[in-house]
Amino acid sequence: MKIIGIIGGMGPSATVDLFQKVIELTPAERDQDHCHLLIDNYPQIPDRTAFLLGTGDDPFPFLLESARRLEKAGAEALCMPCNTAHYFIEDLRMKVRLPFISIIDSTVERIKTVFPMARKIGLLATRGTTESGIYHRALTAAGLETLQTDESFKQDVMDVIYTVKAGRPEEAVGLFNDCVRRLQAAGADVLIAGCTEIPLLLPHLDRSVNFVDPTLTLAEKIVAFARG
Amino acid sequence: MKIIGIIGGMGPSATVDLFQKVIELTPAERDQDHCHLLIDNYPQIPDRTAFLLGTGDDPFPFLLESARRLEKAGAEALCMPCNTAHYFIEDLRMKVRLPFISIIDSTVERIKTVFPMARKIGLLATRGTTESGIYHRALTAAGLETLQTDESFKQDVMDVIYTVKAGRPEEAVGLFNDCVRRLQAAGADVLIAGCTEIPLLLPHLDRSVNFVDPTLTLAEKIVAFARG
Repeated sequence: MKIIGIIGGMGPSATVDLFQKVIELTPAERDQDHCHLLIDNYPQIPDRTAFLLGTGDDPFPFLLESARRLEKAGAEALCMPCNTAHYFIEDLRMKVRLPFISIIDSTVERIKTVFPMARKIGLLATRGTTESGIYHRALTAAGLETLQTDESFKQDVMDVIYTVKAGRPEEAVGLFNDCVRRLQAAGADVLIAGCTEIPLLLPHLDRSVNFVDPTLTLAEKIVAFARG
Repeated sequence: MKIIGIIGGMGPSATVDLFQKVIELTPAERDQDHCHLLIDNYPQIPDRTAFLLGTGDDPFPFLLESARRLEKAGAEALCMPCNTAHYFIEDLRMKVRLPFISIIDSTVERIKTVFPMARKIGLLATRGTTESGIYHRALTAAGLETLQTDESFKQDVMDVIYTVKAGRPEEAVGLFNDCVRRLQAAGADVLIAGCTEIPLLLPHLDRSVNFVDPTLTLAEKIVAFARG
């Protein structure tokens, strides 16, 4: 059994969500069957989107500090339950020599496997994720089109995400469903819940949608890696 | 903000429960307001009750390994979301010089504060917790009486706990409620959900009971310590 290090706290509820999904995906009859996880719930990592939009501190030194803390404590692979933080994944890979399980890669792989006919992908993500093109590049490389969205859509998704981060997910449900409806109307074959706060709203969907939950795809990769 | 180290995985769902309760108890409007937690979800720690009953490996070296891993990674205080593991707390305190927040102490303190008139306490806990007298001693020192229970009750509570650990909490609900009923019938003024799997069943209570949730009392201590 390998030890998985989780750079967490971005936000804390999203880290709980990943932790819970790893447990649920592990075949286990007793405590000892479960995965050994080292979770650094470090919410003081500066806001990723604020930095990418030029209005906040650089989170990279904090991400690196967390990665090194986990490595020193014995982690044998690393991951981050934060899509936006994947902007920094190659820089982290250069500084820390552990395998790094990417939530972007696991998500794109899942789309190709579960929805092989899909072409147009709708993305619910932070401005940091959207404007830095993290998903866009990976989807393009996989032959998939990322639907363009307008300014008001991007702002509405940010409002949804930051309301969840503020601990009031129920207040975000209406606007979340409206954003989903707009992506469907624009022709999305599959939607990516592309910020780790978004899956927390999936139980409140008011329609049938082809959704891929990146946190769930990351959890599957973690279980597979941990169990060798 | 101080870093809290959590010796976890006993079981993993109980660790998620503590993590979630720490988040919910923290006044926060954004990620950065939350507590920095280092969670060692280490389910390979041998079963505490099996050892205390003389039928399993000694968990102490594993608990100590986890405590030292967290200390080395920067934890400034330690805790364990596992009541039975508190059998080892004094031995851990002698080997690791960090403050150790006890779930037993936080629970007894809560009973005295919230139910000052209570005298008879009913304990839902593992055989390891019950027979090693961890709660009994702390309750006696606080002037409280721990209700004695018979063999069939102890076995039923073990069945409840290990069914939850096996990931099938819904199968444990009927027997759990029956155990609660028997403690009430025996005259309990307050019940302690004295194994960290038990609070996972509290949403399924079929009656009104004065329950103290040790995980919640520990979460409050963590938030207070972390925020100084």
